[in-house]
Amino acid sequence: MAISKDVTISEIAARANVSIATVSRVINQAGNIKAETKQKVLQAMAELGLNPSTYCGIKAPADSRSILVCLPNFQNPFNADVIEGIQNAAMARGYRTFFYAASDLRFSLYEYEKIIDQNNFCGLLLVHNVLDTEQLNKIKLKYPVVMCSEHCNLPDVSFVSIDDVYSSQIAVNYLLSIGRSRIALINSQLTNAYARFREKGFLSALNKAGLQANNNWILHITEIDFDIAVSVITSLLKGADRPDAIYCVSDVYGAAAIKAIQNYGLRVPEDIAVVGFDNISLSKMVVPALTTINQPKKQLGHQACEILINLIENPSTPPQHILLDTELIVRSST
Amino acid sequence: MAISKDVTISEIAARANVSIATVSRVINQAGNIKAETKQKVLQAMAELGLNPSTYCGIKAPADSRSILVCLPNFQNPFNADVIEGIQNAAMARGYRTFFYAASDLRFSLYEYEKIIDQNNFCGLLLVHNVLDTEQLNKIKLKYPVVMCSEHCNLPDVSFVSIDDVYSSQIAVNYLLSIGRSRIALINSQLTNAYARFREKGFLSALNKAGLQANNNWILHITEIDFDIAVSVITSLLKGADRPDAIYCVSDVYGAAAIKAIQNYGLRVPEDIAVVGFDNISLSKMVVPALTTINQPKKQLGHQACEILINLIENPSTPPQHILLDTELIVRSST
Repeated sequence: MAISKDVTISEIAARANVSIATVSRVINQAGNIKAETKQKVLQAMAELGLNPSTYCGIKAPADSRSILVCLPNFQNPFNADVIEGIQNAAMARGYRTFFYAASDLRFSLYEYEKIIDQNNFCGLLLVHNVLDTEQLNKIKLKYPVVMCSEHCNLPDVSFVSIDDVYSSQIAVNYLLSIGRSRIALINSQLTNAYARFREKGFLSALNKAGLQANNNWILHITEIDFDIAVSVITSLLKGADRPDAIYCVSDVYGAAAIKAIQNYGLRVPEDIAVVGFDNISLSKMVVPALTTINQPKKQLGHQACEILINLIENPSTPPQHILLDTELIVRSST
Repeated sequence: MAISKDVTISEIAARANVSIATVSRVINQAGNIKAETKQKVLQAMAELGLNPSTYCGIKAPADSRSILVCLPNFQNPFNADVIEGIQNAAMARGYRTFFYAASDLRFSLYEYEKIIDQNNFCGLLLVHNVLDTEQLNKIKLKYPVVMCSEHCNLPDVSFVSIDDVYSSQIAVNYLLSIGRSRIALINSQLTNAYARFREKGFLSALNKAGLQANNNWILHITEIDFDIAVSVITSLLKGADRPDAIYCVSDVYGAAAIKAIQNYGLRVPEDIAVVGFDNISLSKMVVPALTTINQPKKQLGHQACEILINLIENPSTPPQHILLDTELIVRSST
């Protein structure tokens, strides 16, 4: 309800004809309050479109359970929507979510294990790549664990992800269909499973079309960072031989490609077409707007969190390996 | 060290001539390992540029302390840098940070109090506006609390923020100096302290220049959302009377202004100049790049977290109210 978004405690107080302090005490279930006064406050909340049970400690009982959600960092805008999906699923099931970024991803699972040992978390949701499957194996014997966005090859760890190989093929086939055949790939480091799979899809689509990939046009960027990507892509443009399309495994790289191409005095899409990946809001903000592969970001987070909660509540739930659908969104950069 | 970023457990194992499992056990301080074997692993880590003490449980002792950091959500890219500053400060002092977004900001402080009551957090860092100062007063008697980015008027709660009034005056004075006098304001809801202060600065700068603000050109957007902002700004452009500059209190609104103006067939900056706020990376990604007010985002987070840790370690630390410097960054949108 849009109206309830703007209700403040002072409005509740005004409507109930009590002080703000009284509204506070009712919400906080603290102090002595006459039943009649309490009823007036609850009534006012309901009239203002608020569900009193949501705000008066009923939905968040003292034993409310908590999930630890681990991300590589909070910089990649892709994760903002994944987080929203996780939060919504957790809230609907009465769980709280706490977000944590490891100080060093290579050793992160040791850190998470310590954190869960020391705290009240009842499950672990991993929103990043795991290299150390031995340690993951160890943790999953102690605590419910589910992976979101990325996945690993342990058959008994559930994950929700996308088909990266197929999605790359869709992107490359589309570029081929509009007459581009000199296609560069801007990828992340191959330590990320998604990067390996997307590169595989890129190569197989070219191969299927009878084309040979140009190894000078396959670049791996150390982190999803706009400035780094601009300089890497600029060096690509300086080569004697130049691509007529750039396929980027992230919209951040795609935005950087547009910037680098335009800075270099070339036009998007006339000289070089650009395709991104993720469909984050940035892809609509840049000019020209970015053609991209949509990932169902909120759904990835939502479904992974639901599977984790099912596992928490019923440890015998069988593992699930889910690949959600992606889709090509054509905009002006191609 | 760039090299150490790429070291994996298998490389450590190869160099030490032991199994991956052995490296795991050393890092995890688990199981029986011969002193000689352990020494080989630590030696290999050191040779690969890793500090063994960082990874072998020394830096994260069993009693590692945790800080609860509360945000309105994870969607505003401004907060990604603030978070990084918080994490860096906490890590340097041996604290862990857990990030939490309230389900409803109006009642968030009740939720935080319950969470801290039930968990091991030793301090609360608020990265959002607080309306309910009575409840804040109550929490701060129980737990160390510091505010970051936003601030409230309780004299004994420390905060680190910026001078919003002055920053707005800088932005408006700059637009006046380049010959624009018909200036619109795209603001957030006035329930946010920053929005009230930035509007105050906007009005006072116009007033000082002998100009009258046009109330039809002062718009308040419900949340920091690109799509909502585009539609609100488009309706502004449709008016018979049109501004020659738009001052936006967020770069997200600034990017939306550029998009709306270009969609409408007008040019930035020739027809309408645009100024944003925050200097998030988005401001460099859009074309034309956005003139904006830089906020020292990492420093805001870093300093607020340091003050909180000082307060945790010495409860008699006097409150500090710190305003960090902002600066105007001129780019092509003006």
